[in-house]
Amino acid sequence: MSIVVVGSIALDSIETPKGKIENSLGGSAIYASLAASYFGSTYLVGVAGEDFPSEAISLLKEHNIQLDGLEIKPGKTFRWKGIYNDWNQAESLHTELNVLLEFSPHLPNSCKQCNSLFLANIHPQLQLKVLKQMKSFRWVACDTMNYWINLYPEELTQVIEKVDIVFVNEEEVRQYTGIDNIFKAARKILETKVQVVVVKRGEYGSVAVFKDDLFFSPAYPLEEISDTTGAGDSFAGAFMSYLTTQNSLDRNTIRSAVRYGTATAAKCVSDFGVQGLVHQDFSNIQMMFNQLQKWT
Amino acid sequence: MSIVVVGSIALDSIETPKGKIENSLGGSAIYASLAASYFGSTYLVGVAGEDFPSEAISLLKEHNIQLDGLEIKPGKTFRWKGIYNDWNQAESLHTELNVLLEFSPHLPNSCKQCNSLFLANIHPQLQLKVLKQMKSFRWVACDTMNYWINLYPEELTQVIEKVDIVFVNEEEVRQYTGIDNIFKAARKILETKVQVVVVKRGEYGSVAVFKDDLFFSPAYPLEEISDTTGAGDSFAGAFMSYLTTQNSLDRNTIRSAVRYGTATAAKCVSDFGVQGLVHQDFSNIQMMFNQLQKWT
Repeated sequence: MSIVVVGSIALDSIETPKGKIENSLGGSAIYASLAASYFGSTYLVGVAGEDFPSEAISLLKEHNIQLDGLEIKPGKTFRWKGIYNDWNQAESLHTELNVLLEFSPHLPNSCKQCNSLFLANIHPQLQLKVLKQMKSFRWVACDTMNYWINLYPEELTQVIEKVDIVFVNEEEVRQYTGIDNIFKAARKILETKVQVVVVKRGEYGSVAVFKDDLFFSPAYPLEEISDTTGAGDSFAGAFMSYLTTQNSLDRNTIRSAVRYGTATAAKCVSDFGVQGLVHQDFSNIQMMFNQLQKWT
Repeated sequence: MSIVVVGSIALDSIETPKGKIENSLGGSAIYASLAASYFGSTYLVGVAGEDFPSEAISLLKEHNIQLDGLEIKPGKTFRWKGIYNDWNQAESLHTELNVLLEFSPHLPNSCKQCNSLFLANIHPQLQLKVLKQMKSFRWVACDTMNYWINLYPEELTQVIEKVDIVFVNEEEVRQYTGIDNIFKAARKILETKVQVVVVKRGEYGSVAVFKDDLFFSPAYPLEEISDTTGAGDSFAGAFMSYLTTQNSLDRNTIRSAVRYGTATAAKCVSDFGVQGLVHQDFSNIQMMFNQLQKWT
């Protein structure tokens, strides 16, 4: 059982109250794939430029991430520069789309065996292109961001109408639905075929909203945070990769998916860039999962 | 098994995005006592002025709240006027201490049988006066606010050193300890004889921090909120009143106390002033308790 992750591949320069990194491996598909790799076979679909470091390729291979869907195109890799004054919201200082501008994702045949698809944060038009090539995935999920909700709400709605699970944060679900109460807002999205809306609440954890049920999880309590970039991507990547082994989206399955996502996201934010997600011991993630269960 | 609640008695004028009320029954001891009354015999200790409405007295009696400790003094009842632009923080527009200025609380003999004491939000010097009269209570807890932390930190520390349980919100625990991370900050307070620090997180619920354990609870999900005044007081009142029947502060006891506090606080914020706490059916609070258990 395996998962396809489609999204952005980036070289990030990030400044947080704890320090800074330059041109470091990033992007929604990278964070989500690394997180997913702890739970099952993972296929990455995205585009990078000729400047994409060979060490990054090696790192992804060390995590057994299948790269048939990784395109290396002439030009530079997508670059993002951001600064965190508030842990929950980065201020974008600079964005260079570069090769992402011309990107037209396609699912390689090797993905045929995959049973889950995660459309990580990327232009909804690209998410739609992937959905048009969709094979018979058991579970399909999407993530997005305020920028796309603001500029491409119709395309985003077309995406949401085709998925089983939607990942959004509180601000995004309010912005997308125009409803201030996050439970009402999530239920608005559940009027489609979407089965679960996972509302991410930053340091306060998340709530999974079903048509007739709820599941709350706190964030994993950390005494130190280094960089919250990729927290949501790694939460969703782990969540969806865990689901590849599951046959239903019942509350116990979602409960476990949320806890694995929460633990993996905590690993992510405990270090800069993707460092917290690299070469981790799964038993450590399992231990954090068990503690979350105990603490709630 | 019964509880003594000491704190402020007020006539509040409150404006929220949902409406306004004038000279309405309020104060930390009132909210906490009404919440406590659903769980056991409750003794109120506080001071009101000659303008204190007889309907308020009747209301408290209808809730079987013992009023031997209620002093009616010449002058006006403490008055507070506040407006909520943000549900988590009221802006105080006007405060008249009135009879509270000269208040010197004393525990009536009838309280001898009580086994728990809740020092609701009031001047720490008054909380200390009560602690000096302390009988052999099984559990003693205190609440406070940013104002006292700012002006009377030494007195507040003397109070905290004498209690088993401390209720604070995130901002208060950071302000009192000077530590930004709420888990570290709570553990700093746990260096005393305090056994549990309950950190209130507004719409995100609460976390009970023990020396070697944690318990997270979400807030009860509401689709409509009217007025968050008294939410923390009613949370703590219900929490402490439930504890009067318990012999230890083990995690299962605290878990139940947090959930009863959470359900009762949700009742409080669902209507204006104390209306949400008045003449409720306990089975309804129990149902909310059960749902909280299911949703986590």
